[in-house]
Amino acid sequence: MTFTQMLAAAWQTNNSLLCVGLDPDPAKFPPHLQMRDDAIFEFCADIVDATADLVCCFKPQIAYFAAHRAEDQLEALIERIHKNHPGIPVILDAKRGDIGSTAEQYAVEAFERYKADAVTVNPYMGRDSVDPYLAYRDKGVILLCRTSNPGGSDLQFLDVGGEKLYERVARLAASEWNSSGQISLVVGATFPAEIARVREIVGDLPLLVPGIGAQGGDIEATVKAGRIANATGLMINSSRAILYAGKDERYTVAARKVAQQTRDAINLYR
Amino acid sequence: MTFTQMLAAAWQTNNSLLCVGLDPDPAKFPPHLQMRDDAIFEFCADIVDATADLVCCFKPQIAYFAAHRAEDQLEALIERIHKNHPGIPVILDAKRGDIGSTAEQYAVEAFERYKADAVTVNPYMGRDSVDPYLAYRDKGVILLCRTSNPGGSDLQFLDVGGEKLYERVARLAASEWNSSGQISLVVGATFPAEIARVREIVGDLPLLVPGIGAQGGDIEATVKAGRIANATGLMINSSRAILYAGKDERYTVAARKVAQQTRDAINLYR
Repeated sequence: MTFTQMLAAAWQTNNSLLCVGLDPDPAKFPPHLQMRDDAIFEFCADIVDATADLVCCFKPQIAYFAAHRAEDQLEALIERIHKNHPGIPVILDAKRGDIGSTAEQYAVEAFERYKADAVTVNPYMGRDSVDPYLAYRDKGVILLCRTSNPGGSDLQFLDVGGEKLYERVARLAASEWNSSGQISLVVGATFPAEIARVREIVGDLPLLVPGIGAQGGDIEATVKAGRIANATGLMINSSRAILYAGKDERYTVAARKVAQQTRDAINLYR
Repeated sequence: MTFTQMLAAAWQTNNSLLCVGLDPDPAKFPPHLQMRDDAIFEFCADIVDATADLVCCFKPQIAYFAAHRAEDQLEALIERIHKNHPGIPVILDAKRGDIGSTAEQYAVEAFERYKADAVTVNPYMGRDSVDPYLAYRDKGVILLCRTSNPGGSDLQFLDVGGEKLYERVARLAASEWNSSGQISLVVGATFPAEIARVREIVGDLPLLVPGIGAQGGDIEATVKAGRIANATGLMINSSRAILYAGKDERYTVAARKVAQQTRDAINLYR
C-alpha cells in the first residue's frame, strides 16, 4: 500500500485525524525509565501502544534521536510500529533539503534504513531537491509550506508577484511537482486563515498540521479551515501535550486520555 | 578559537580557499577498502591526511554517513581531524531547518555530539529556527542562500519586492540575524554574477561556494566575484573531483594532486 492509501485507511479505521508526534526528551521521562539504556525506545513504544487505535499516523522527530545517538532505537521503533500496528503510517520528520545526489542519500536514510512511509522535506532548494524522494513511488513526501513558529513569516510571508511565498509553494506542490500524487504539505495551526488559503489552492491534498496542544493552535478553527468534503484531509499533530501528560509510571494512561480527548475534540468539528 | 578565527587562520596558514567536501560513496571506493567495516572512516581519514595542508576547511556531508548507518564513523572522523589537524575547521553539512525546540536538538547533534565547528542550516523557517545554533557562540552557522542546482531558482529567484528571495536572505543574514558575527552563506558557483551580488550585500561575510569541479563551476569567475580585499572570504568546495580522482590504492596521491591543482588554480585569481 502507498502512504496515501494507508493514511486514507487509517483515517477511516480509527475515525481519527490525530497524528501523535514522537519527540522523546529523556529529561521529561518518568523516573523509572530514566536510567535505562533503551529509554527512548521504551518510552516511545509505550506511547505508541497506548494510542495506536486513536491516530491516523505517528511522526517521530529524528532530531531528538540524533541528539542522543539513538538512531538504532529509531530504527527499532519504526520496525515495531509496522509489526504491531500494521496500517498506521509512520512519517519521519526530518525536514531534509539538499541537491539531487545528496537528497538520494537522505531518501535512502528515510525509506531504506528507517523504512518510514513518508518524510518531511524543505522546499527551499526547489524541484530537483524533492524528486529523489518521489522516486520511491509508494512513499509520501510532505513539504514544508507555512510554519507557525514566530520566524515563519520572515520568508514564507513575502509577496512574490501577487501571492505569498507559502502560497507559491502550495501551488507548485499541488501542480507541477506532484505528477505522481505523493505530495502532502506542512501548514501550521496558528493561522487558520492560511490553512484555508492553502486548502483552496491544493484541493484535497493531505495537510500535516502541527501547532495544536502545547503550541496553542485552535482545534475548531484548524479543522474547519482544513477539512475536505469527506471530513478527512488532515493529520493534526500533537506531541508534548500527549507524551508528557503524565509524569509517573502511569504515563501511558495519561497519554491515552489526552490523545482520546484530542481526537474527540477534532471529531466534534469534522 | 571561534569558527571565524579558525577559518581566518587556515586561509593564511595553508594559503588556501579550498574546502574539501567529504561525501563518501562506498560504491566509488578503491577495491581494497570496499570490504572493510570502517571503510567510510578509513577512506575519509586518508583523504583528510593527504590534503590537510592544502585546505581552509573540511566539510563532511552527513547524508552519506546516515544512509550507511555510519554515524559512529562520522564522529570518529571529526574527532580525528581535530586531533591530527588542529586549526582546520570542520563544517557539518546537514542543512537542518526546524522550529526552536527541535533546532536545539539539531544543534546538540552538530556541536555536542559531532563537535563540528560550523553547520549548514536552511533559512526557510526564519530567524528563530537559526537562533538555537547561534547560541553556541564559538560555532559558525552557514545559511543556504543561493544554490546552483537546477531547481535552485524555483523559490530563491522569485522577486520579493524589488529583490530576489536569495538577496533578501543575504540581507537578513548579514544584518538582523547576524548580531553575533557567526553567520556565513552558501552561494553556488554556477552563477558568478549572483556571487558578486551577494558579496555586495554582505560585505566581508565568508561564503561557502559549492559547484566547482564535478559540478562545472568556473574557478576564475567564482574567485573574482567572491573574494574580499585581503584575498580571502571564500570556502570553495570540491568533493567528488578530489575524492574519486584515483580508483586504486594510490587514490590519496591522486586526490592530493587534484586538491593541489585546485588550490593553485584558485590562488591564480585571488
